[in-house]
Amino acid sequence: MGDRADRKRNFRTPLGVAEKPNMDALAKTGSIGIVDPIAPGVRPGSDVAHFALLGYDPYEFYTGRGGLEAVGAGLKMGAGDIAFRCNFSTVNDRMIVTDRRAGRSTYGREELAKVLNTIKLKESEVSFEFVPTVEHRAVLVLRGKGLSRRVTDTDPHTEGRTAQRSKPEDESDESKRTSEILNDFTEKSHQMLGDHPINVDRVRRGLPPANIILSRGPGSLPPMEKLETKYSIKTACVGVAPIVRGICSLAGMRLIDVKGATGGLDSDFKAKTGAALDTMKENDLVFLHIKAPDVASHNGNFEQKAEAIERIDEGIAEVVRSVDLTVDYVVLTSDHATPVSVKDHSADPVPILIAGPDFDASGVETFSERTAAVGNLGRLLAIHLMPIMMNRLGRVEKFGF
Amino acid sequence: MGDRADRKRNFRTPLGVAEKPNMDALAKTGSIGIVDPIAPGVRPGSDVAHFALLGYDPYEFYTGRGGLEAVGAGLKMGAGDIAFRCNFSTVNDRMIVTDRRAGRSTYGREELAKVLNTIKLKESEVSFEFVPTVEHRAVLVLRGKGLSRRVTDTDPHTEGRTAQRSKPEDESDESKRTSEILNDFTEKSHQMLGDHPINVDRVRRGLPPANIILSRGPGSLPPMEKLETKYSIKTACVGVAPIVRGICSLAGMRLIDVKGATGGLDSDFKAKTGAALDTMKENDLVFLHIKAPDVASHNGNFEQKAEAIERIDEGIAEVVRSVDLTVDYVVLTSDHATPVSVKDHSADPVPILIAGPDFDASGVETFSERTAAVGNLGRLLAIHLMPIMMNRLGRVEKFGF
Repeated sequence: MGDRADRKRNFRTPLGVAEKPNMDALAKTGSIGIVDPIAPGVRPGSDVAHFALLGYDPYEFYTGRGGLEAVGAGLKMGAGDIAFRCNFSTVNDRMIVTDRRAGRSTYGREELAKVLNTIKLKESEVSFEFVPTVEHRAVLVLRGKGLSRRVTDTDPHTEGRTAQRSKPEDESDESKRTSEILNDFTEKSHQMLGDHPINVDRVRRGLPPANIILSRGPGSLPPMEKLETKYSIKTACVGVAPIVRGICSLAGMRLIDVKGATGGLDSDFKAKTGAALDTMKENDLVFLHIKAPDVASHNGNFEQKAEAIERIDEGIAEVVRSVDLTVDYVVLTSDHATPVSVKDHSADPVPILIAGPDFDASGVETFSERTAAVGNLGRLLAIHLMPIMMNRLGRVEKFGF
Repeated sequence: MGDRADRKRNFRTPLGVAEKPNMDALAKTGSIGIVDPIAPGVRPGSDVAHFALLGYDPYEFYTGRGGLEAVGAGLKMGAGDIAFRCNFSTVNDRMIVTDRRAGRSTYGREELAKVLNTIKLKESEVSFEFVPTVEHRAVLVLRGKGLSRRVTDTDPHTEGRTAQRSKPEDESDESKRTSEILNDFTEKSHQMLGDHPINVDRVRRGLPPANIILSRGPGSLPPMEKLETKYSIKTACVGVAPIVRGICSLAGMRLIDVKGATGGLDSDFKAKTGAALDTMKENDLVFLHIKAPDVASHNGNFEQKAEAIERIDEGIAEVVRSVDLTVDYVVLTSDHATPVSVKDHSADPVPILIAGPDFDASGVETFSERTAAVGNLGRLLAIHLMPIMMNRLGRVEKFGF
């Protein structure tokens, strides 16, 4: 939800202008401040940002995004397996990527995935699994010995360029072999999808054909100690984005599915908030992740972002009504900022709000980047948030005697 | 410009009392905060402070001041060369230092330098170069193999003590040899300068004779990646102090010379500011360094410091007039504090001000240590400043996805 003050808009931000009486109420009797996701000036991906939010040092635990995404999609990942984030994409007959997201359409993707899973790789000792996730996205897991995550993407990350050949990023045999397997899979994906009836159908419907699988973000599984053993707490996660589910799953959090939760702007925030509140009975910590303001930010749409925040606030109404703040805590923050002016993640600090039995009242009338910047929590690092909360829950060991 | 609040002066500081309408205007619509140059309680030299300001970790890149000073003075430094910061100094006939700075007078120093460069060292395989810089200051570079920067200073750092013999700081042959060479040079400097006609002349004019060269701060060249490759930016530096020019030069910044810029209290700040503004057309980042408030602080002169700040503010008037803050950024801070009560560098945090298209307005009426301490930037480390600004310029890579 965080954004940059815009001099041309009289320093307003989506959070600053949004009507959000419930967040404001929490901020008034809670503490507020700002959080650097990793460190000032470090621009985080959602993955490393979530590691930090959950108290895991990303410099230690980040082993590429693919593995997290695979776990989030419910796939099994072994110790040596390598997973990639994939897109159903569109290339033209010269292999130039004309739409990295194949129109963001999910039409026929399940059937295409079935076909892809019949691919015979040249490297017979390595098996694979391809699973569609959200919208045009999917995960590819390579399973076997002698694999490496040190290979380049086949996704050119921009349209108008050709699909790339993966290359090893180091001199190892494992990296060379993994890049060859990925190239083999990518070529065969194009061969098998190119003339597939589903794509004929898609074109007839005015959709770009999903005629190649492009991969990025290779990753293995980070060896994370579960929150349950680390802090003796039971935890759950309400979220849709595979990356969030993946990290939460590795942290040992129970994943809660919610009807109407899409991970997009059309998600049912009230249903998600309700589900989070319901599961507070059985858990010490419930993590509720809502992606919509980030989606609006990537669209560069100020008003859409403000609206998403207002709709989230409607969900928070139920938090205000039903959470007993003399007993329980509510923390509201972002994993990172995505300024609408940038349309991408930025390194800016994000606002945070913590209300609960023993956090002081800030007394502010509104929760915004402006009030948070001079708030009574000061300026924190995200990696400190879990220890701060676990301290309030009496779950941190004493250092020294 | 930063200083300590003085209870006896009703907590006033030079920055707090100075009339500086232009800084205040920038602060009002910009963000303010405080910066620890290295870390709270670490008292920095100008060298390490500048490393941090420019985004280089001084614990990694600081290899002694001499090398930086030499580069700043335009001298060539090879990989194994060792440079010293020197003073033209005055000793009496018992070798007691009576004036470390020989009256701060530059009278005759060029001619004395010529004489010094004819010294024949005992160690014939090592060559040297001696170059006067600002006021009574100079640089000595030793060139050759088998040298070390681990030797003690000949400068006693206080008057009333004798010129010191340099000693090795470790057991290595290189350190032993380097200290011997430095002692040889120092003795010969005294022999050659003692009765030199220039010094006879100086005494006649009421100036202390510049009759010895005292050395301190041995250093080699740190292996720094240039800002241009690190962040893909073109950069320039407007500054006089050799140490600043040295570090900026190593960072790959173009050094701009300005007529009337002296590095002292009499420097033409308006000319420097004008030169900095001019070169903004061709550069992404221009670093303007003004030393005067530090000079006044070393003098322990509160009013002189406040006046220097007021004169800097007159230069900033042109910044306020000509910089378009909906496009460009202005950052105003100090490399370190030099409280007038201390007359030396201190570890105190310094105020910072950042105005630009997307930093929030602090709304303060005055820029001072007091308003900055509770400002909307919070408390930062200097090492984070470059990443913070490069984030705004879209020049930092994403960590994660």
